[in-house]
Amino acid sequence: MALRGGDLSRLRQLNSLSAIRELRREGPLPLSALADRTGLSRPSTKEVVDELVGLGWVEEVPPSPGTMGRPARRYRFRADNGFLVGVDIGAHNVRAALSDLDGRLLAETRQPVEPGTPVDERLAAIEAAVEGCLAMSGKTAADLWTVAVGTTGVLSPDGVIRYSAGIPDWRGFDLGERLRAMFPCEVLLENDSRLAALAELRRGAARGSREVVFLHVARRMGAGLIIDGKIHRGFGAASGEIAMLPEARWFDAPEHLNSCPVVPEGTPAEDAAGFTLAAARAGDPVALEAVRRYVEDLAVGTAAMVLLLDPEVLVLGGGFSRSADVLLPPLRDRLARVCVRMPELRASTLGGECVVLGAIEYAVDHLDRQLFAPDGGPELPAPLTAAR
Amino acid sequence: MALRGGDLSRLRQLNSLSAIRELRREGPLPLSALADRTGLSRPSTKEVVDELVGLGWVEEVPPSPGTMGRPARRYRFRADNGFLVGVDIGAHNVRAALSDLDGRLLAETRQPVEPGTPVDERLAAIEAAVEGCLAMSGKTAADLWTVAVGTTGVLSPDGVIRYSAGIPDWRGFDLGERLRAMFPCEVLLENDSRLAALAELRRGAARGSREVVFLHVARRMGAGLIIDGKIHRGFGAASGEIAMLPEARWFDAPEHLNSCPVVPEGTPAEDAAGFTLAAARAGDPVALEAVRRYVEDLAVGTAAMVLLLDPEVLVLGGGFSRSADVLLPPLRDRLARVCVRMPELRASTLGGECVVLGAIEYAVDHLDRQLFAPDGGPELPAPLTAAR
Repeated sequence: MALRGGDLSRLRQLNSLSAIRELRREGPLPLSALADRTGLSRPSTKEVVDELVGLGWVEEVPPSPGTMGRPARRYRFRADNGFLVGVDIGAHNVRAALSDLDGRLLAETRQPVEPGTPVDERLAAIEAAVEGCLAMSGKTAADLWTVAVGTTGVLSPDGVIRYSAGIPDWRGFDLGERLRAMFPCEVLLENDSRLAALAELRRGAARGSREVVFLHVARRMGAGLIIDGKIHRGFGAASGEIAMLPEARWFDAPEHLNSCPVVPEGTPAEDAAGFTLAAARAGDPVALEAVRRYVEDLAVGTAAMVLLLDPEVLVLGGGFSRSADVLLPPLRDRLARVCVRMPELRASTLGGECVVLGAIEYAVDHLDRQLFAPDGGPELPAPLTAAR
Repeated sequence: MALRGGDLSRLRQLNSLSAIRELRREGPLPLSALADRTGLSRPSTKEVVDELVGLGWVEEVPPSPGTMGRPARRYRFRADNGFLVGVDIGAHNVRAALSDLDGRLLAETRQPVEPGTPVDERLAAIEAAVEGCLAMSGKTAADLWTVAVGTTGVLSPDGVIRYSAGIPDWRGFDLGERLRAMFPCEVLLENDSRLAALAELRRGAARGSREVVFLHVARRMGAGLIIDGKIHRGFGAASGEIAMLPEARWFDAPEHLNSCPVVPEGTPAEDAAGFTLAAARAGDPVALEAVRRYVEDLAVGTAAMVLLLDPEVLVLGGGFSRSADVLLPPLRDRLARVCVRMPELRASTLGGECVVLGAIEYAVDHLDRQLFAPDGGPELPAPLTAAR
């Protein structure tokens, strides 16, 4: 709408981006359809597409075999032109996934760690998890455009961890600097609950919604917010930390499950809640009472979020969400007593993969912003075919 | 970017809207500047402007007197082409304001009411408040394009009041239907705390910010959220109702101020808190203790909002905000103990006018959406000059 008269190179750039966008979303397309969608003349479209093919962004695809007459040439965005990695650095697991530029997964890996694992060992596990993905898909680090990383805690814009309850050594650590030294490409960092919320929005239980609260229920509690279809980060990237408020009653809530008498003596701390939840599912009254108390606490902070934000969907994710059948009915009852309008309550469909999948979606979104931002965004990496 | 080849009438409409937008934001402008900003050729710009002048949307303005040579013709958007009314229907006051299409105020009125005022009397007060604005500015109801109304409670999309703590008779009342029968123009309804937040964003204490929590502190408590520069309404328009959660400790918080021993016997309920706040300002230890307890409660729900949303600015508004000097320092201390990142705490600069000014801004935004929405939005009223 507001193109200036003289700025032709900018116009051409916009035309190229417009063509890439349409091919990425709708492709493969013949030239005529692409011209129709971009509003360019057919000769201009041909010129733009030839340029993009030369740069390695776009390629011709073979015509459908059954086509009658002379088949129209069709073109598609080369999503295999570069690769994206998502990493989930948790207290107990380091996960990685590798995808093409459209977010199609090629490989996933996981390495167990501990909350007390020394920082250098945790970094080595990250490197190993990514190496594993590269080896499985026959790629090298040079093929990567973006590594997107999620971890627990509040991160500064350049990736220093300001606060982390889950990984004690994380506090004050310059994770961004270490990861930028580790990978020869762009590195993005984000809070893990926010990435999990994004994954549920795009691939999981919250598809089709624009107002979502993701509730991370596990040994530690967390929340990720989707508002108007986007991750809500907050002014200082510190949103979602309601677990810090004692009156929200989240911090000690898991103790009701951990300390239930149904848990056999000598059970490792990380397995205790699972026993209680399983016993509650089987109808054990002592376990059901522990679950009731747990949900009573869980519901306080959750009701605060629902009353404040009025989401369409509340997704229960994290380790305990495997017992969503046990947790959701009492949580729904408890919320209905206080909430003005009830959201839909749903269990995560992505389980333990939600953060790593959210990291992939985050990297895809970042590429979209580079392609489609009003100001053109930062420079894109050269496509691999052109770089070689 | 995505104009289709054949759709010329749409293109012309877009060109007209583009010209109106630039004149509205940047005007008055000469044709050459307008051509530059819209990306149209000069002859096309002339054609569009002539059409808009004919339709009454745009007018020529006299050249600046000091201009040398033949002065260029300049054009501006006719903001006096129609008028907007904002109404604040509160428990204790009905306020109205009248502005031009750019939101410049021409008149304001106020009528006192009571929480128990019968519905028909409250509606009569609304009509009188608007009539007063029309009379003061020499307009009639036929000059109005939009009446935007804010009131307490949760409203359905068509203006039925689902819930209202402030005006008991409001519950279940079809306010939208009655207002649409009252005014011969478009009627918009919105929650009053959300409009107050919008007013502070545009004209008050939160100017320049995109992440704002507006805290309504008065005999009743409320909250309005600005997220990413826009009112956050929630999926079912029920956001901001954290006062409903007993654990947020907002509902009874004002009692600490109302029941303080410094309040003289026989003081009307609506004046009690003012005595306590004034005594605290003067250093009375009993009043200071009452304020401390009040802030202790106020801080719980407020910390939940700050931890969850991480706003840049928290605006203290509502009746008690006249004592922001007494309330903000202890509130800041209390929040700093629990919040991961502290927002800036500021007192409202709009006072009792915040809702009515927010309603005007809301009506201006609505006109913007009609002018600039990607799909053109609903039909605009004909400009007054063309309608007569």
